[in-house]
Amino acid sequence: MSTQCTILISAPDKKGLVYHISSVLYKLGLNIERNDEYVDKGNMRFFMRTHTCGEINEAILQKELESILPPHSTLKIQTCQKKNIIILCTKENHCVGDLLLRHDSGELYANIQAIISNHNTLQPLAEKFNIPFFHIPADNLSRERHEAKLLEVISHFDSEYLILAKYMRILTPAFVSHFKDRIINIHHSFLPAFIGANPYKQAYERGVKLIGATAHFVNENLDEGPIITQDVIHINHSYSWQDMQKAGRDIEKAVLSRALLLALEDRIFVHNNKTIIF
Amino acid sequence: MSTQCTILISAPDKKGLVYHISSVLYKLGLNIERNDEYVDKGNMRFFMRTHTCGEINEAILQKELESILPPHSTLKIQTCQKKNIIILCTKENHCVGDLLLRHDSGELYANIQAIISNHNTLQPLAEKFNIPFFHIPADNLSRERHEAKLLEVISHFDSEYLILAKYMRILTPAFVSHFKDRIINIHHSFLPAFIGANPYKQAYERGVKLIGATAHFVNENLDEGPIITQDVIHINHSYSWQDMQKAGRDIEKAVLSRALLLALEDRIFVHNNKTIIF
Amino acid sequence: MSTQCTILISAPDKKGLVYHISSVLYKLGLNIERNDEYVDKGNMRFFMRTHTCGEINEAILQKELESILPPHSTLKIQTCQKKNIIILCTKENHCVGDLLLRHDSGELYANIQAIISNHNTLQPLAEKFNIPFFHIPADNLSRERHEAKLLEVISHFDSEYLILAKYMRILTPAFVSHFKDRIINIHHSFLPAFIGANPYKQAYERGVKLIGATAHFVNENLDEGPIITQDVIHINHSYSWQDMQKAGRDIEKAVLSRALLLALEDRIFVHNNKTIIF
Amino acid sequence: MSTQCTILISAPDKKGLVYHISSVLYKLGLNIERNDEYVDKGNMRFFMRTHTCGEINEAILQKELESILPPHSTLKIQTCQKKNIIILCTKENHCVGDLLLRHDSGELYANIQAIISNHNTLQPLAEKFNIPFFHIPADNLSRERHEAKLLEVISHFDSEYLILAKYMRILTPAFVSHFKDRIINIHHSFLPAFIGANPYKQAYERGVKLIGATAHFVNENLDEGPIITQDVIHINHSYSWQDMQKAGRDIEKAVLSRALLLALEDRIFVHNNKTIIF
Repeated sequence: MSTQCTILISAPDKKGLVYHISSVLYKLGLNIERNDEYVDKGNMRFFMRTHTCGEINEAILQKELESILPPHSTLKIQTCQKKNIIILCTKENHCVGDLLLRHDSGELYANIQAIISNHNTLQPLAEKFNIPFFHIPADNLSRERHEAKLLEVISHFDSEYLILAKYMRILTPAFVSHFKDRIINIHHSFLPAFIGANPYKQAYERGVKLIGATAHFVNENLDEGPIITQDVIHINHSYSWQDMQKAGRDIEKAVLSRALLLALEDRIFVHNNKTIIF
Repeated sequence: MSTQCTILISAPDKKGLVYHISSVLYKLGLNIERNDEYVDKGNMRFFMRTHTCGEINEAILQKELESILPPHSTLKIQTCQKKNIIILCTKENHCVGDLLLRHDSGELYANIQAIISNHNTLQPLAEKFNIPFFHIPADNLSRERHEAKLLEVISHFDSEYLILAKYMRILTPAFVSHFKDRIINIHHSFLPAFIGANPYKQAYERGVKLIGATAHFVNENLDEGPIITQDVIHINHSYSWQDMQKAGRDIEKAVLSRALLLALEDRIFVHNNKTIIF
Repeated sequence: MSTQCTILISAPDKKGLVYHISSVLYKLGLNIERNDEYVDKGNMRFFMRTHTCGEINEAILQKELESILPPHSTLKIQTCQKKNIIILCTKENHCVGDLLLRHDSGELYANIQAIISNHNTLQPLAEKFNIPFFHIPADNLSRERHEAKLLEVISHFDSEYLILAKYMRILTPAFVSHFKDRIINIHHSFLPAFIGANPYKQAYERGVKLIGATAHFVNENLDEGPIITQDVIHINHSYSWQDMQKAGRDIEKAVLSRALLLALEDRIFVHNNKTIIF
Repeated sequence: MSTQCTILISAPDKKGLVYHISSVLYKLGLNIERNDEYVDKGNMRFFMRTHTCGEINEAILQKELESILPPHSTLKIQTCQKKNIIILCTKENHCVGDLLLRHDSGELYANIQAIISNHNTLQPLAEKFNIPFFHIPADNLSRERHEAKLLEVISHFDSEYLILAKYMRILTPAFVSHFKDRIINIHHSFLPAFIGANPYKQAYERGVKLIGATAHFVNENLDEGPIITQDVIHINHSYSWQDMQKAGRDIEKAVLSRALLLALEDRIFVHNNKTIIF
């Protein structure tokens, strides 16, 4: 029994969906505190996020809702518990540190269960905040062998999300497939886009006036997963590419934490490689 | 009979509201295309905006919804017709011109029925776009007499909104009372705020680094009506107060047109001097 | 003789440049009102923009400055006259209209000498503002033949800048070569970038959360010329691609007018396909 | 002898200043790497920031420059050393933590010599990063007595700047007078402004759509010192005042660190209660 929960429904659109869903909630004596809906007309898909309160028996709620939802629907009932997360990182401290500080002040409604890195650079930082740190070097290991070691560590926890807080290695589709829509990555981004090594240097050569960051779920195609949120900052000709990188860090950490907040509050739907965010 | 409409409901919050409302829509064979709800817990007030389609008999829809809404509710059923608007202005052309251009390209889903000004500066601009222009000078008139003349012109039209596109005169509470939540004003705004003559000069003296604009409904207290939308631009020490004013115009016209768009799409609720915007 | 001018110097960096330049100005009795300098260390290039006032004999000033500048320098002395510009456009009115309004109010410190389009859609708009409109259809013409007709019209004027205000045709390198760093284009831009037809539709499919616009000089490689200024607006999942296009127009017109303003105030240097902006 | 330095000159404007200054640098064999100037015409005041390199004898440079500057000038020659700073805070960790992380990664070009607080809440955080923490409770102390204790601690260090990282007590003019243009504060800010207790609650009641933060130097009038930088974030009706406060923290920490960066790079002039920032 809980007293508050968030219901996430994605279903093929059809007449009467809101009526049938709200009818279930009404009969179970639940009050709707916030309700967002969106119909993606192109895909005839209905999305609904309902925050409800009352005396909630989740098993019954689940069964009743399933009985009225059309085939090919998805239903998630999330109680308002802190979610468990694991952070993956490499050497840069800005995103990891920002998450640790928010965690430390109680602002991040999550338990950081572990920090895993292919380098030990951030071990002292993790230890300052008493978060278990796992150093899993990738040297002389095939990508698969390295990921097997990551999975071994991760398997000791029950994390809902993996946060790539500037984790600078590419994950294989096989690894990613274990965590569908559960890996959040932060990626620099530019107008235009730059592919390959040292994008900041390329952006500098191109003379861009904006630096951006994109937080997205990771899917099997690197950097092409569903976008959660994006933002930019303005720069000018006096920025060296190192200055641009420094400025990029500020926007990266801000965007990653906003994306994580949305995930922790169960505000994100993923469909057809896009996000619907309420 | 129409085929699409937007339903706006504001009601004291109580259990089952969504169920009862969606039940009405379902029985009338209407499909919900977009549905937004929000409960203001502090005031125990429920807001719902539903965009629906189907064969809609508005009178029946209205009657059925009224029968299930609690006392002290408000209900508006808006069909997707162009709304009529009247623009009030003084001498500056940036906001008026922006609205005229959007109107001219068909982008502004509204009929500009008239432009009224206390000066004739913008008459040529209005005429370029074939919009009736009414010059109502305020010289030697009491505020009440001048407003009586405004009302006389306005009364020949059936406008849903009055848009104060840099109308530089203060409206009396008596005038405003004729158009509750139907007058939209654009106002420069600064951090901190500056009161009195030439706020740009004051802002310059203060050395602000941001210039803002606020679009709001006008109520009986000048500049204190419900805020619709706000935005800012960054400036620096090299801006003279005239440069600041010029930059201010760009943000003013952008913010005013965004606010008007929200109003024209029936996205705004007003309650307790605040807006809820879906 | 003029009383104010802007001096733009780009030169190989060497010790004493500022001293030698300011020495010339001092001896000619000129006062420096604003002075910006920047050294691009990677390219060892010096850029200086000086706004000066006094009794200025431009021929003498030019000669004196040339005598102290190292080889491979460039020198421009700009008096504060309104610049002549020509607008090229196709069918969309937002950028053209915005420039016409700014011109009409006296805010745009430029003479719009002509508007040229491959369609006649915007002819009525140009006529409202009494700007000569030239309709040069491209149908059944080779790109070269069409551009020859454009050049024929342009040759009757003495414009300093060509403004591509949503001119939807690609210009040949031959055409562009007549107007080195004198053609300003506005281009939608996204994170990531989308190439090919209907980028808004591609961006919609990708689920981007930002829409951007980039103003740049046109060089022989389409859309790859030196960037002048960029900006973005935030969008969300509820935007159709048409909504995105509409929102894109607002950012496009804002960014284009900012870029033009910088050009009209002689604030832009171009070097190595990048801009230095003071 | 150093090899790089930043020269900051503020002087009554007169013809030949740039010439005379650059002449000194040229004769001493110094190269100008970046030079920014601005003339505040209203106040006839000249500001110049020059970044120079070469074999620099600071005493000679100072003497030579003083000999050519008019009366009532100010001159600062800053070598590129890390500056010492002291942080004052109360209970909130977001600004302090952000500075500590930047310090820890080497990004913040400064030595944090001490953290002083009227509460001990942040002592564990300071200790994680090995920064001396001084808990100076204000209970049962007059403002003057409390500040005397602060000064006592501060006097053991040689800090260039005091950073008020959410220090929630008002400083007396007497205290402030010890650190003219050397205390940087971060302050929430709103459009319109709200004065008095719990501004977030007031802003919530008012229904603002923006939350801002202002970093400024502290002068004898609380919150009215010279503004260094400002920024805002957008919010909507669904934000409770606690949500607004949380969002406010993100913008506060970003704005404070930007302001500090400008100070550490010697980019700020203060004159007539305004800043000129190069």
